[in-house]
Amino acid sequence: MALTIYGDSTSGNCLKVQWTADKLGLEYDWVEVDVVKGQTRTDAFRTLNPAAQVPTVVLADGRPLAQSNAIIWHLAEGSELIPGDAYMRAKTLEWLFWEQYSHQPYVAVRRFHKSYLNIAEADLDPKLLVRGEAALTRMETWLAGSPYLVDGRLTLADISLVAYTRVAHEGGFHLAKFPSVEAWVRRVEQDLGLS
Amino acid sequence: MALTIYGDSTSGNCLKVQWTADKLGLEYDWVEVDVVKGQTRTDAFRTLNPAAQVPTVVLADGRPLAQSNAIIWHLAEGSELIPGDAYMRAKTLEWLFWEQYSHQPYVAVRRFHKSYLNIAEADLDPKLLVRGEAALTRMETWLAGSPYLVDGRLTLADISLVAYTRVAHEGGFHLAKFPSVEAWVRRVEQDLGLS
Repeated sequence: MALTIYGDSTSGNCLKVQWTADKLGLEYDWVEVDVVKGQTRTDAFRTLNPAAQVPTVVLADGRPLAQSNAIIWHLAEGSELIPGDAYMRAKTLEWLFWEQYSHQPYVAVRRFHKSYLNIAEADLDPKLLVRGEAALTRMETWLAGSPYLVDGRLTLADISLVAYTRVAHEGGFHLAKFPSVEAWVRRVEQDLGLS
Repeated sequence: MALTIYGDSTSGNCLKVQWTADKLGLEYDWVEVDVVKGQTRTDAFRTLNPAAQVPTVVLADGRPLAQSNAIIWHLAEGSELIPGDAYMRAKTLEWLFWEQYSHQPYVAVRRFHKSYLNIAEADLDPKLLVRGEAALTRMETWLAGSPYLVDGRLTLADISLVAYTRVAHEGGFHLAKFPSVEAWVRRVEQDLGLS
């Protein structure tokens, strides 16, 4: 029994798991779950993940695990995608928590509202743009002085943050205003074989 | 040079760090930073944490670290607050990411709006109550069958989740509706010497 990934291919949170598994050379089965169609809210799905969210994985031993960043951390433990140095590990986790708290709720949510729920520009919550741009500005400041987010090399921090940053334009964010972020997106995409 | 914790004593995110350090018997200096007075948005504070958020710690070697759950994970590595078993470690991280994504933005934010910004009940964003109660319901379901969140014993998952759950009433949530959560709060408070 291999790893099974329950994911929605339009979700950056789910693609993080796919890219991490691919980078690590893990075998897996991908089960497509359509969030917009409500496929996470069935009783069957809730037995896997009571929070009714994708991605959810079922490990080779049959046990389920949820939360994109917890999943990629578990899959990548012991690999070079997580630094061995204790401080660099902690910085990697710092970016992962920041992504879920200060980046995804604005950059990804504005994309979802605009491009998936088709909410008109004028009706979008204005704080999504302000806070999303603040998140991109913080990344720009850091990436102007470093090719990657942690330790000068590809780690889970890059895989996690690139997921919604690379599609930020679908949320109405202009990456041309953040040239170091744009160059980093291309760099990470190349590392992951996405370009 | 000991650990320095920059924190706001009214913030559950900051108290998590204090409780973890206390439980581990770590020495530290606490520097009070008042968020409402804008003390995280000074240039001096931004050199420690460009995201301008507390808690931020400065480790004994002088290097800064941010994000409450990344900090407590770093401090507790190798201790019994993080399970040694790989799957239980992953479940602990799952709860930590869920806390920041599906619990804190509703349970803690409604408390902040209601009790610190003094926004009138009628003007509070209605989704804060709905989603906060959904988070508490998920915890109730789990805790009805287990005394702690992971592995049947106190871990970082409990320390992280108890921070805003124990003050949920200040956000207008009624823990009496969630009896297993209420009993767990008392249990964890006792374990942490808070009651």
